[in-house]
Amino acid sequence: MPRSRSKLFPSADDAEAAFYEAFERGDIAAMMAVWAETDDIVCIHPNGPRLVGFEAVRDSWVRIFAGGTRLRVRTVEGRDFKGQTLAVRAVIELVAAPEENAPVTQVLATNVYELTENGWRMVVHHAAAAPAAEAAEEEEEADDSPHTLH
Amino acid sequence: MPRSRSKLFPSADDAEAAFYEAFERGDIAAMMAVWAETDDIVCIHPNGPRLVGFEAVRDSWVRIFAGGTRLRVRTVEGRDFKGQTLAVRAVIELVAAPEENAPVTQVLATNVYELTENGWRMVVHHAAAAPAAEAAEEEEEADDSPHTLH
Repeated sequence: MPRSRSKLFPSADDAEAAFYEAFERGDIAAMMAVWAETDDIVCIHPNGPRLVGFEAVRDSWVRIFAGGTRLRVRTVEGRDFKGQTLAVRAVIELVAAPEENAPVTQVLATNVYELTENGWRMVVHHAAAAPAAEAAEEEEEADDSPHTLH
Repeated sequence: MPRSRSKLFPSADDAEAAFYEAFERGDIAAMMAVWAETDDIVCIHPNGPRLVGFEAVRDSWVRIFAGGTRLRVRTVEGRDFKGQTLAVRAVIELVAAPEENAPVTQVLATNVYELTENGWRMVVHHAAAAPAAEAAEEEEEADDSPHTLH
């Protein structure tokens, strides 16, 4: 796998697809190729602190990927807000281990993309675990709800 | 107090100021005057489900304000991403009861505003409780941390 990928994302949707692909593959180079290389980017993992700046955001993904667990992520019920140079996508992430019938955890995410001189890049990823009640409603088949968050 | 306020917010910053003012005053009319009147707006309260659409968002604020507790909210460490018709502001909210020396809770918020035909309106408010560790770091004076979130 090539170490660095200087891919240009021609749309916010392309950047989002690359973000979740990198997440699923645990590919740190591909993940950080999605983010804008600035000190202002913001990343909030579920129940985590606010991380600001490329280095802090990179370190967090390095730690997450170091765990070695690959996860499947599917996004549903997207709500898009699009400007010429800024795009926001609020999604529900359905996250599960790769095994068949693995329980699904719902994560509520707000993703922000900005058109930079290097194409569309992610500038904010704000993720929060959905409360169990909603998970039950949305995923009727997942009776054994994966996490009780509170 | 006038029942409805059809205020036009000439900038995203004006809309944000009005949002937090309405929040502090527990003024539902003022609060909903900040939001875009569409079925696509998204609001996530700390540890809450994703609420979509004007009615669901309105109902949640009605319930929050019905409690009668007025809170002070100060925002710090804003990170702005601005487009011509879309603006995103990631802030740390310092939330406290009005009493002197009341403990401060930190909430991480991502606020999105869109330029509509009625001026700038809020379209996304995604709020998550900051973990206690960060609260301790940021608010050294608040030894008696208000909430242990986990």
